[in-house]
Amino acid sequence: MHSIAEGLAKKQRKISVAEFFERNKQILGFDTSTRALITSVKEAVDNALDACEETGILPDILVEIRSTDDDEYLIIVEDNGPGIIRKQIPHVFARLLYGSRFHSLKQSRGQQGIGISAAVLYSQLTTGKPTVVTSKIGDGFPAHKCTLVIDTKKNRPEILHDEMTHWEKPSGTRIELPMGGTYVRNRRQSVYGYLRSTAIVNPHARITFVEPNGNVTIFERVTDKLPPQPKEIKPHPYGMELGTFIKMAKETNARKLTSFLSSEFSSVSIQKAKSIVETAGLDPSSNPNKLSLENAKKIINAFKKVRLMSPPTDCLSPIGEILIKRGLRKEMDALSPEFISTDKRNPSVHSGIPFLVETGIVYGGNLPSEERVEILRFANRVPLLYQEGDCVITRGIKNMDWRRYGLQQRGGKGIPFGPAIILVHVSSVNIPFTSEYKKAIANVEEIEKEIKLSLQQCARKMKSHLSKKDKKVKTKNKFTLISKILPEIAEKSSQVLGKPVPPIDDVITKIMNIVWIDDEVKYQEGRIISTISITNYKNKAQSFELYAALPDEGLLGGVNPEADEVKREYIMWKINGIKPAEKIELSFQLLGMEKGDFDENTLYVRGIDPVNVIGAEKWEGS
Amino acid sequence: MHSIAEGLAKKQRKISVAEFFERNKQILGFDTSTRALITSVKEAVDNALDACEETGILPDILVEIRSTDDDEYLIIVEDNGPGIIRKQIPHVFARLLYGSRFHSLKQSRGQQGIGISAAVLYSQLTTGKPTVVTSKIGDGFPAHKCTLVIDTKKNRPEILHDEMTHWEKPSGTRIELPMGGTYVRNRRQSVYGYLRSTAIVNPHARITFVEPNGNVTIFERVTDKLPPQPKEIKPHPYGMELGTFIKMAKETNARKLTSFLSSEFSSVSIQKAKSIVETAGLDPSSNPNKLSLENAKKIINAFKKVRLMSPPTDCLSPIGEILIKRGLRKEMDALSPEFISTDKRNPSVHSGIPFLVETGIVYGGNLPSEERVEILRFANRVPLLYQEGDCVITRGIKNMDWRRYGLQQRGGKGIPFGPAIILVHVSSVNIPFTSEYKKAIANVEEIEKEIKLSLQQCARKMKSHLSKKDKKVKTKNKFTLISKILPEIAEKSSQVLGKPVPPIDDVITKIMNIVWIDDEVKYQEGRIISTISITNYKNKAQSFELYAALPDEGLLGGVNPEADEVKREYIMWKINGIKPAEKIELSFQLLGMEKGDFDENTLYVRGIDPVNVIGAEKWEGS
Repeated sequence: MHSIAEGLAKKQRKISVAEFFERNKQILGFDTSTRALITSVKEAVDNALDACEETGILPDILVEIRSTDDDEYLIIVEDNGPGIIRKQIPHVFARLLYGSRFHSLKQSRGQQGIGISAAVLYSQLTTGKPTVVTSKIGDGFPAHKCTLVIDTKKNRPEILHDEMTHWEKPSGTRIELPMGGTYVRNRRQSVYGYLRSTAIVNPHARITFVEPNGNVTIFERVTDKLPPQPKEIKPHPYGMELGTFIKMAKETNARKLTSFLSSEFSSVSIQKAKSIVETAGLDPSSNPNKLSLENAKKIINAFKKVRLMSPPTDCLSPIGEILIKRGLRKEMDALSPEFISTDKRNPSVHSGIPFLVETGIVYGGNLPSEERVEILRFANRVPLLYQEGDCVITRGIKNMDWRRYGLQQRGGKGIPFGPAIILVHVSSVNIPFTSEYKKAIANVEEIEKEIKLSLQQCARKMKSHLSKKDKKVKTKNKFTLISKILPEIAEKSSQVLGKPVPPIDDVITKIMNIVWIDDEVKYQEGRIISTISITNYKNKAQSFELYAALPDEGLLGGVNPEADEVKREYIMWKINGIKPAEKIELSFQLLGMEKGDFDENTLYVRGIDPVNVIGAEKWEGS
Repeated sequence: MHSIAEGLAKKQRKISVAEFFERNKQILGFDTSTRALITSVKEAVDNALDACEETGILPDILVEIRSTDDDEYLIIVEDNGPGIIRKQIPHVFARLLYGSRFHSLKQSRGQQGIGISAAVLYSQLTTGKPTVVTSKIGDGFPAHKCTLVIDTKKNRPEILHDEMTHWEKPSGTRIELPMGGTYVRNRRQSVYGYLRSTAIVNPHARITFVEPNGNVTIFERVTDKLPPQPKEIKPHPYGMELGTFIKMAKETNARKLTSFLSSEFSSVSIQKAKSIVETAGLDPSSNPNKLSLENAKKIINAFKKVRLMSPPTDCLSPIGEILIKRGLRKEMDALSPEFISTDKRNPSVHSGIPFLVETGIVYGGNLPSEERVEILRFANRVPLLYQEGDCVITRGIKNMDWRRYGLQQRGGKGIPFGPAIILVHVSSVNIPFTSEYKKAIANVEEIEKEIKLSLQQCARKMKSHLSKKDKKVKTKNKFTLISKILPEIAEKSSQVLGKPVPPIDDVITKIMNIVWIDDEVKYQEGRIISTISITNYKNKAQSFELYAALPDEGLLGGVNPEADEVKREYIMWKINGIKPAEKIELSFQLLGMEKGDFDENTLYVRGIDPVNVIGAEKWEGS
């Protein structure tokens, strides 16, 4: 007896993951011939940066694209990283879903073990040629040169040629990928644009880029300090899925429920473990390997009832306000921006996963004032070039009212218009990407909230800068007008009345009726000197508090006169009875800074109506 | 001697594809608890429809969602398909990248062998519970009931329980998936919305839906005819990648280059194969298994130079204008739409892959007139619910000027506003999705072009309907006005002049100065009777050609008077000298139709200034 089902069953077979991605190459970012080149460079550079940072080496990366034939290029990416041992080379480069970072909760660029092998796959698909990888693991070791293809049916590497060779480099890896593609320049979505964005968020890397026409660009590093090594963390009970929890319980070597909880989870002490098990109504010394579904559910529910600390956040490696500013300043130099503000949030948590948001705004200069702002999106120091509309970063920007910060925005929603570039960087041990080829971050409420909070901080600084500038211009105009017209009126009136011209300086002061605050920032040999001057143009003595914002980094030196309060974020002086027409000066220094790291004060006042003050905003607490 | 690289190598390991997707569940559509339920139902229903159609069974599908616990549901999907043999059940449901359709070029819903196993993966992740699958492969066979989980480390099924059982059904498959999730109603992005959309493009399927509250909805089939079985095709030389071509050459059993080309490619006859090999300058009898890279390139180049037929298109299974209209009419019934137009394009090709576009527009009725139109996107009869902004369908709609068809659209770009629903269905043997979880179709120029052409056709019909309606209303108002006022004027004038009232019918005709065309469509026992009446309100005899558009299906019967031309798309009468005030009648019948399949004529005229005609548009060729 035969059934239809038996006939159908004959067609059923396993699909190799390499075949799958060969067919669905658009999923991995190889959907157009232009993107294919960018994606390949991206995958190789991501790996190079990860390898260097993991082993404490300042990255020095060469990217070269040679035109070898009609629509065919040779992509070369060479690093000074730790190298890869001979046995691993074929697996790392010619096998999808193979890698070292998937099974650990740690911030890194690559994670899936797919990217570079996908580039090799696309290379052989479009050119029929193999990829050549050369790697050396240290002084005194030989270099290995492997010529590779992927056997897509098996998803396994096939080594065509293998030799030992001499390489003067102490250590490093070089990949040579032949590739069918289209090379473009002068666009944000280009290899050049990608490397420029990469340079901004990787200020410790030097990247040399040789284009097909021989043009060489060096993206120089702006710091010699490697980012701190992100630590690996254990999963946190918040956001734990029942199925994952049961699997962990089955596989643990811990003999007791409490020791299982305290040893395999973040933020769970023995004490907390006991309290969780108690809340769940279970026996603390029961064997976790034999945990039933019912009891596992009880523990998952108890997780929600027992108050736990957030997971540790040393698994994250932010860039920092100052380094983002330096990166932006260097790469945006040609635009001569008027103002750059940056902000770094404290780490936050969603579903038990720590993450951190940093932002920056570049304003003015040669930026077009009537166009949509440019958005630079980054995840774990990697630029996100595509699917802008689908990303939580864009969502965060759209859902903020930018009009109150001086940009144009129809109805207070959507991407604002104006002479600005908005940068957002999200770091996490597990970025929730919307697709395999990391183009966009999924809509996670907590991430959107942090993005908005950080951008508000940046935007406030921008607003403060703009309104300070604006008010000063207006007040100066008024000043000029009054000091020109009043004397003329006085003179004419005196002539008519036949009386002498009266002194009018006092009158001018009365008309101005403001407190004028000026500031100047100078750079002198690693030291920023900030001077603030206050002049009282009101007709009564004034008393108030003056707050000056301090940058995220830099050591505070010589404060003069002594401040009344110094916090991480600000310094405060009490101004006691500054007399009419009196001018006083305040100053502070910042050590260990570079030129441009801090170039304008953000000043606030308290205890005086801010309407009467030019050069500072209303203090609203820190 | 030890290197850093050796330490790093120890961490390198294989990642199972199940682990990968467990971690990256958002990629497969499990990113929110609401979507997880919809996605699971979708994967099971896709499989059920594919299996039924492949084996010539009219699908009868039950979808039931039961609330079992807080935030926990049991999803049941049962079909009357051919069933699955016992040995295959675990692999089909609990192993990712395993399936029957990946290795063939044929239109189907599922292709990757990922979907339903991903649902099982998510089920066990959120509930810790196994999935139960019951399947029976025919009368006289026992049913098998398997209780399954996926061993994610190995990406292999683990059978917890297995029994033979009695099932009264002749054959079929039933899956019971426990799942953590959130059930919503009354939204387009819901299980209900998904099933309703599925019903529109699968008019041959009956779907019964039981909701958690016990509510039962039956989406009844509107046809008993199964769609034609799509045929499997060979790859076409256009769009062939070099790497794929080399692999095919290496693996072929053909002994000669020419026989390799003619036997393994679409549209390549022995004659064409010879001409390709000749153009490439190669030996026709050389062994394809030994083809060098250089020579492979020559053939790929020759492919572009030799003119080849398009690939066969019987691999596609379109729905058809009439069935789309029936589906839309049934599911949109509550909106009482004023007008529905549909269109089906001929198959087209991109990169050697055949595809076909069908569209529909629903207009008026209770649809909101001041909102964005609703877009219904489909690929191979599957609704696309997410990432609308990233899809070539949306792009095609945005890049069309809808203002000329009577919808509102700012600047002639973007999604139009108005009381309309726009449906687009793309069929292909290989839909270029932007991501694994099929949410959007990538931007392929050829597909966008076909979408626009088809929508223009639909929109023209809508426009013709709207302007016919509009003109008739205006002209009727004019008629009424004139026939009321003129007699009064005549009467008054006669009174004043003391003369009798003159006849004024002739004058009215002169003032109207138009040819009036009316049409009526009646349905009578499987037969559509369309009657067209023409009245000449001009003061001279008129001669012109009248074209009536014919629907895609339906047999043309009783044409009266005999037509002067009958084509697939239209029927044409020559109107010879219709006298002033004369009225003539034309009619035709359509057989094998249902009520609503054709409910309004689209009429065109040639040889007369269309400005003088009410009820027909200018003929612009077919």
